Amino acid sequence: MEKQKEFMREAIRLSLENVKNGNGGPFGAVIVMNGKIIAEGYNQVTSQNDPTAHAEIVAIRRACDTLDTFHLTGAEIYCSCEPCPMCLAAIHWARIEKIYYANIQEDARRIGFDDHAIYEELTKNRRERKIPIAQILPKEGKAAFRAWEEKVDKTPY
Amino acid sequence: MEKQKEFMREAIRLSLENVKNGNGGPFGAVIVMNGKIIAEGYNQVTSQNDPTAHAEIVAIRRACDTLDTFHLTGAEIYCSCEPCPMCLAAIHWARIEKIYYANIQEDARRIGFDDHAIYEELTKNRRERKIPIAQILPKEGKAAFRAWEEKVDKTPY
Repeated sequence: MEKQKEFMREAIRLSLENVKNGNGGPFGAVIVMNGKIIAEGYNQVTSQNDPTAHAEIVAIRRACDTLDTFHLTGAEIYCSCEPCPMCLAAIHWARIEKIYYANIQEDARRIGFDDHAIYEELTKNRRERKIPIAQILPKEGKAAFRAWEEKVDKTPY
Repeated sequence: MEKQKEFMREAIRLSLENVKNGNGGPFGAVIVMNGKIIAEGYNQVTSQNDPTAHAEIVAIRRACDTLDTFHLTGAEIYCSCEPCPMCLAAIHWARIEKIYYANIQEDARRIGFDDHAIYEELTKNRRERKIPIAQILPKEGKAAFRAWEEKVDKTPY
């Protein structure tokens, strides 16, 4: 458990430093593989003008860049706060195998980050969502899916 | 409705071209503001070694970069396929106000992209999730949140 605490303290250090530096929200994350930190990330939403630049997303992109891969099988992520739905889904796509977090959603909500509202939104039927969502041209949309199925030299992920 | 079809046809065109070019999965997206396309995106997961480089995320990052902002209030997104949870949450964070899609989750599942499984995962209690998730150092984690609350010159988002 000492090793895990050490990695989490680094994620927490990044989150605190990020507030001081004014890069973005109070969030940090580190990705660990084989007992070593392979990438770090901190929230850069406002400084990079990128609403997707959450600490976890930044760390995942850096880890993949470093390892030259699009899957982080065998990796763990240490997040200073419980991942929002965007980051949790990204962790799935990246095939990270374990998540540690310090703060929880409710803590984040108290300081103005309402991840919880997005979690709720994702469980709703399409018709009940806050952001209206509508289907158009479903038949024409199929063309790329057919092409994907038929493609012989594709890289699945 | 003709305008909407035109924008969706562009998203579909990107998705099909992406399969032909071998950049990544069969997905495209365009972001529209004031009746004009301001950014386009296509899936680049495998070509960029970035599991977060879904069409919608790429389009959001480009739109924000172009407009020099981290909020796309007033924008619509046209996705060749219904957004996965990562992208749907990103659309929320970006404050996009309307979503159009052509293919649905079930279509994506049939060709090997199981967004639906991630949607299900997000609705589960922490203990029932496929990727184990554990809390450590909650007290130490609070430091950055306190610093954020006390920071006078912060940029909220």
